[in-house]
Amino acid sequence: MIQKYVYGNPIETGAVVQEVSKSEGSSVLLHLSETDEGLEFSCRMNENDVVYGLGEQVRGINKRGFSYISYAADDPVHTENKHSLYGGHNFLILYRQDGAEQTSFGVFVDDPGKVVFDVGETKRDLLKIRTGKDCVVYVIEGDSLKDLAKQFRALTGQSYIAPKWAFGYQQSRWGYLNKSDVKTVVENHRREGIPLEAVYLDIDYMENYKDFTVDPERFSDFPEFVGEMKEQGIHLVPIIDAGVKIERGYRVYEEGVREHYFCREENGENFVGAVWPGKVHFPDVLNTKARAWFGGKYRWLIEQGIDGFWNDMNEPAIFYSEKNLKKVLHEISSIQDDNLDLNEFFHMQEIVEGLCNHPQDYQSFYHDMDGVTVCHDKVHNLYGFYMTRAAAEAFEEIVPDQRILLFSRSSYIGMHRYGGIWTGDNESWWSHLLLSIHQMPSLNLCGILYTGSDLGGFGSDVTEDLLLRWMAFAVFTPLMRNHAAAGTRMQEAYQFDAVESFRNLVRIRYALLPYLYSEYMKAALSDEMYIRPVSFDYPKDRHTFLVEDQLMVGESIMIAPVYTQNAGGRYVYLPEEMMLVRLRSDRKRTYQVLAGGHHYIDVALDEVVFFVKKNRMLPFAVLGDDVKTTQDVSPDRLVWIGFTDDWAEYTLYDDDGISRRYTPKEEWKMIRLSKGEMEGVSADASIV
Amino acid sequence: MIQKYVYGNPIETGAVVQEVSKSEGSSVLLHLSETDEGLEFSCRMNENDVVYGLGEQVRGINKRGFSYISYAADDPVHTENKHSLYGGHNFLILYRQDGAEQTSFGVFVDDPGKVVFDVGETKRDLLKIRTGKDCVVYVIEGDSLKDLAKQFRALTGQSYIAPKWAFGYQQSRWGYLNKSDVKTVVENHRREGIPLEAVYLDIDYMENYKDFTVDPERFSDFPEFVGEMKEQGIHLVPIIDAGVKIERGYRVYEEGVREHYFCREENGENFVGAVWPGKVHFPDVLNTKARAWFGGKYRWLIEQGIDGFWNDMNEPAIFYSEKNLKKVLHEISSIQDDNLDLNEFFHMQEIVEGLCNHPQDYQSFYHDMDGVTVCHDKVHNLYGFYMTRAAAEAFEEIVPDQRILLFSRSSYIGMHRYGGIWTGDNESWWSHLLLSIHQMPSLNLCGILYTGSDLGGFGSDVTEDLLLRWMAFAVFTPLMRNHAAAGTRMQEAYQFDAVESFRNLVRIRYALLPYLYSEYMKAALSDEMYIRPVSFDYPKDRHTFLVEDQLMVGESIMIAPVYTQNAGGRYVYLPEEMMLVRLRSDRKRTYQVLAGGHHYIDVALDEVVFFVKKNRMLPFAVLGDDVKTTQDVSPDRLVWIGFTDDWAEYTLYDDDGISRRYTPKEEWKMIRLSKGEMEGVSADASIV
Repeated sequence: MIQKYVYGNPIETGAVVQEVSKSEGSSVLLHLSETDEGLEFSCRMNENDVVYGLGEQVRGINKRGFSYISYAADDPVHTENKHSLYGGHNFLILYRQDGAEQTSFGVFVDDPGKVVFDVGETKRDLLKIRTGKDCVVYVIEGDSLKDLAKQFRALTGQSYIAPKWAFGYQQSRWGYLNKSDVKTVVENHRREGIPLEAVYLDIDYMENYKDFTVDPERFSDFPEFVGEMKEQGIHLVPIIDAGVKIERGYRVYEEGVREHYFCREENGENFVGAVWPGKVHFPDVLNTKARAWFGGKYRWLIEQGIDGFWNDMNEPAIFYSEKNLKKVLHEISSIQDDNLDLNEFFHMQEIVEGLCNHPQDYQSFYHDMDGVTVCHDKVHNLYGFYMTRAAAEAFEEIVPDQRILLFSRSSYIGMHRYGGIWTGDNESWWSHLLLSIHQMPSLNLCGILYTGSDLGGFGSDVTEDLLLRWMAFAVFTPLMRNHAAAGTRMQEAYQFDAVESFRNLVRIRYALLPYLYSEYMKAALSDEMYIRPVSFDYPKDRHTFLVEDQLMVGESIMIAPVYTQNAGGRYVYLPEEMMLVRLRSDRKRTYQVLAGGHHYIDVALDEVVFFVKKNRMLPFAVLGDDVKTTQDVSPDRLVWIGFTDDWAEYTLYDDDGISRRYTPKEEWKMIRLSKGEMEGVSADASIV
Repeated sequence: MIQKYVYGNPIETGAVVQEVSKSEGSSVLLHLSETDEGLEFSCRMNENDVVYGLGEQVRGINKRGFSYISYAADDPVHTENKHSLYGGHNFLILYRQDGAEQTSFGVFVDDPGKVVFDVGETKRDLLKIRTGKDCVVYVIEGDSLKDLAKQFRALTGQSYIAPKWAFGYQQSRWGYLNKSDVKTVVENHRREGIPLEAVYLDIDYMENYKDFTVDPERFSDFPEFVGEMKEQGIHLVPIIDAGVKIERGYRVYEEGVREHYFCREENGENFVGAVWPGKVHFPDVLNTKARAWFGGKYRWLIEQGIDGFWNDMNEPAIFYSEKNLKKVLHEISSIQDDNLDLNEFFHMQEIVEGLCNHPQDYQSFYHDMDGVTVCHDKVHNLYGFYMTRAAAEAFEEIVPDQRILLFSRSSYIGMHRYGGIWTGDNESWWSHLLLSIHQMPSLNLCGILYTGSDLGGFGSDVTEDLLLRWMAFAVFTPLMRNHAAAGTRMQEAYQFDAVESFRNLVRIRYALLPYLYSEYMKAALSDEMYIRPVSFDYPKDRHTFLVEDQLMVGESIMIAPVYTQNAGGRYVYLPEEMMLVRLRSDRKRTYQVLAGGHHYIDVALDEVVFFVKKNRMLPFAVLGDDVKTTQDVSPDRLVWIGFTDDWAEYTLYDDDGISRRYTPKEEWKMIRLSKGEMEGVSADASIV
C-alpha cells in the first residue's frame, strides 16, 4: 500500500510513473515538523531496526549510523565521511525485526533539491529526514522486504535494459588517445584470449573536448574505425559530457545560444562554468525543447555506428565558474605576502580549492522548466537524470527497436528507466571494492540495476591482487568494466603477470552469462532486484541482517567476495545448507555441500566461488577455446549446476539481446531437471 | 645473528646502541644493485612469505602488496594510497613459511633520508628496497619471529617507559581554550564516574602559539592551575611544536638566533617556514648544543608542575615557506582570468595546495651536525626523533629519577628509547579503527611500545557506536586517549547517551591495569613486544599468518576487536582452545571455554571481550565504586582470571609507577595458582 503526501508546491520530477491518489495530512509513521529551512520527518528506531536503501552512498548495506545528503557531488574521494556522492536516491526501507511486520515501511522523498537523511548519526535511535518546503513523500507499507522493494519499483517504473553485449567484459581508460591506442587494447585482449566486448572512449576522443565531435586526426575516418572494431566484435562507447564548449563556429554551441537552450543566470545571460573544454554553457535539459535538441545530437554518433554512451560530468561538475574565479583571483591579488597571516593563508587555500563545485554556483543559475523559471539548486539532483533522459528519448526516435547502452554518473530515482549508472571515480583501494559490494544492493533497491564500479579502481595505482579480487566480484555485476584514470598504473588485465588468471576470471563471467543475463532480465521485467542483501531472501534468520559482505545474485546463488589484501579466504555465513561452487576456470569446477551456519572458506587469488541455494540451479555455458565476445556464448551448449536431492526448477530468460522485443513472461522457459541431469548435486563431488 | 653492512659514508643516526662489527660485501639474502639515485636491495618472495614491520604505515599487518616510503609526512588523510605517514620505521621481517627456518630474516635500513619499500606492489613476488647511497643495513637472522624481534630490540635499545598514570584514561581536544574548558572536562568525567587521568593542552594554551609560553589570560596563574588539577588527580599535558615563532622580544627566538641554533638555508640565513604561530625558525635539534638548549626549555614547564608532553609538527610540518609563498603569489598575480586555460587553472590549484610540506622546502635548509653541514632532505626522518631526544635528555638532568610522559608525532627508529608516539591525525572512520589495530603490532615490532591512536578519530564527526567500539579496543593500547580536532563533533565520553557504557569501558581499562602495566613493563624491560601479531605466538599454525584483525596482548591474552559499523559481533580464529572473557562492566564478567578453530562471537556495543590462552592467567583489579585515577587501583585487591585444568603461572611486574627505579628481574613476582583460586577456569561458568 502506498500513501502519497504532498507538501507545498512540489516540482514534477518524473520520478514516479504510477498514479497514486493524494492522502490528506501526514503519515503516522513519520513525525512531521516544520523548520525555517523546510520539513523534518522523524521516527524512532529500535535497537534491531535495519535501514536499507539510499542508493549510491558510502558505508554499509545497513545505512544506520551516518548522515547521507542527497545533493549530487563530483567528489572523487569516497571516504567514510563523505555525505554525498554522485546521485540522489531518496528511497529507504526501515525494517523492524522486533515489532509487528506492518511497522516496517519504505519512504521515498520526491524532492530533487538537497535532502538530508540522518540515520541515527546524531542520536543512535533517531531517523531524521530533512527536505525542502515543497516535496512529495510516498510511504509504502507491505508484507516483506521484497514486497516493499517491488511496490517501489511499480511506483517508479521498469528499469533500463541494456543490450546483451553490455554484459560482456569492457575495457576503459582515461588516456586512450587515438585509434592506435584502442587497437592495441583490442589486440592484446585477443592475443591473450581474454574476451572483450567494448572499449570506451574517454574525453580524449573529442576535438578539444567538444561534445558530438571526434578528433579528425587522432580518430580520422571515424565511421570506418567504428566498423572495423565492430567486425572484431568490439563496441566503442564514447563519453558525453554535460558542458558545451563556448567556441564561435562550434555548431552545438551556436545552436544552443541561438535557441536559448542553455541554463541562465538571473540577469538572463548564459551561465559560464569551466570543465574539460574550458568555458562551457550547460544545456537546460529540464526544458522539453532543449532536451529534445540535446538528445538529438547523439544521432550523429549513432549514424557512425556507435551504440553505447556514458554521460559524464552531469552533477553538473563545475571546475570553476567565470564569476567566482574572477572574485578569487582578485582576492589573491590583494594579498601582500609580507603580511599574510595564517588565517589569510588558510582562506586562500580554501577559496582556491573551493572553486570546484561551489555551492553558490549551483544557486546562481536557472532552468526554464517549460515556462517556469527554477533555480538550479532546487532541482540539482535532476540534472544527470534529464541529460540521460534526453539521450534515451532521442534513441527511441533514432533507433526505436534497438537497445543502446547508456549509463550516467549522476542520477536521481526515475533515471533508472532510461539508463544505468557507474559508481563514479573510485580509487584502487580495497575499501572501495567493499564499498562497491555495499552499493550494489542499495542501488538495486532504488531500481538502478545496470551498474558496476570502475573495477581495479579509477584513481591511484592498482595492484595485481586487488584487480584479481575485484574482477572476481565483478563477474556478478551487470557492468563489468575495468577503468582507470590518466596517470595511474596501466591496469588492463594483460599488463600483469597473472594474465592467465585474468583470462580465467573473464571466461567465468562469459560462462555465467546465460544465468546473469537471464536473472537481470527477469528482475528488470518483473520489478525485482537482481542483487539483494541476504536478509531479503532469509528475513526470518536474524543473523542475515548483520551480513554486510555477502549478496544474493538472482534467484539461485549467493556470493561472498574476498575484499581484503593478503587474505587466503574469508568467513561466510550460510543461512541454510548450500552448495559451494569453486571455479578456477570455466572448466575447473568443484562442488561441495556445506551445512548452514558459519564457515571459513579458502579462496585463492585466482578463484571465483559462489553458493547455490537448496533446490536451485543455474545454467553455465560450455565455452569454446576461443571466446571473444558474448556472441561466442551459445545458448545451446549449457550445463546445469544445481543443488538438490531430487529435482530443481529454473526459469530461463533469453532473447536476441539487442532488440526491444523482450520475451513475454508466458514464453519464459521453465526448466525442470532431476539431480541426474545436473552437475554438482552430490556432496563433496569434484567434477573437473 | 646480526650482520652489518656499510655503504658510502652514512650519517650516524643514533638508531643503534649495540656494537656490531662490520661485515664485508653484501648479504646473500638481498641482491644489491646500484642506480643513479642510490642503492637497491631486492629479494624474491614465495607465495606464502609474510612481511611484518615498517611501523606506522597504512594497510595490513602483513605488509605485502604495496609500496611504503619512509619520508615523514604531515598528511592527515590516511587513505590506502598514502605511501608515507608521520614516521620512518625501516625495519621489516620477511618470514618464510615454506622454506627452512633460516631463510627468514629481518632487515633494518639505517638511512634517515627517503627509503622506499616496494613489498610486492610492482611485482607480487618481488621485495625491493631503495635507499640513498650512504646507509647502513643490518640483516638479522634468528630462530623465530619473536627471536628476530628481540634481536632487533637489543640492537636498537630499550623502549621508553611512561609513568604508570599515563596508562590511565586521557582526554584531549584541539579547542580547549582556557582553564574553564579544562575544568569542565574534568568535572564532567568526575560527575559521570568516568575515571580520568590527564587532560591535554593543544596549541591554544600558548600565547600566540609560542613554544614554552602559556597564555597569561586564558591560563592565568598557571602553576596554581596545574597544582589544582593535580589535586584532583589530573595531569595536564601540553603540546610542544617544532617551529619557534619569529617575534622580536620572544626569548626562545632571540636566543636561538643569537646562538645560531636554527636550521639555515644555503646562504646562511635562518630558514623561514610558517606553521601555527605564523612564520617560524626550526631549532636545529641535530646539533648537540642546539638540542641541549631546546631541551632545556622544557624545564620552565616542569618547574610549574608539568610532567607530560607531546611533541607535534615535527616532521617538521611546514604550511608554507616564505620563499615558496612569494613565488606562488607572484605566479598567480600574473594570471589574467580572461585567458586562463584549464591547465593553468589546475596548475594554480596545485601550486596553492602544494605549498604545504613542499619537497623542495625540505631540500633547501640545512643542519649543522656538530660541524658537518647536512641537507635536511638527507636526514628528514630524524627531526622528530631528535626533538624528542632533546626533551628526554633534558629530563634526565632536570628530574633524573622521575618518569615524564613524552610522545611524538614524527619518529625514527631509535626514538623509541626516548618516548612513544601517537599515530597522528586520523579520522572518525571505522577503517581507521582497523588501521590502528594494524599499526599496533607493526609499531611494537619496531620498538615503539607506548602508542595509541586518537580514539574516536581526530578529524570528522564521530558517532557513538564508533567511539564505543574504538574504546573497547583502546582498553588494551598503552596510550588510551580520546582526541578530536576543532570543528568536529564534541566527543568526550559524557557527550553521548551511552555514558554508562563509556564509564564501564573505562573502568574495565582500570580493572585491567595491573595486567596491562605489568605486561608493558615486562615487554619494555625484556626487549619484547607488548602487542604482537597472532602468528608470533603460534608460528606453526599457518592460518595465524592470515589473521589481520586479532592481536596478542601480553603473555596471557588475545583480543579480537569489533571494527565494523552495525555489527553484532565478529568472526574470531582461536589457534587453540581458549577461554572467552566477556565484560559488560568491571563487575559483570562471564567466561566460556571455546575449542580451537573458527567462531562467530556476539559482541554487544557495550562489551569488551578477550581470550585467555590455555594455562595462563591475569590479574584483574577489584575496583571501588568511585575510581577516579590509577591511584585508586589497589595492587592488593586483585582477582585472578585464568584458564587451566590444573594450575597456571603469571609473572607480575609492579613498581612505584613514577620513579626510574624499575623492579629488577629477580624481584618480579612469580604467582602460581591452582584452578580453585581463579575465576573463569571451568567451561561455561558464568560469574557476575
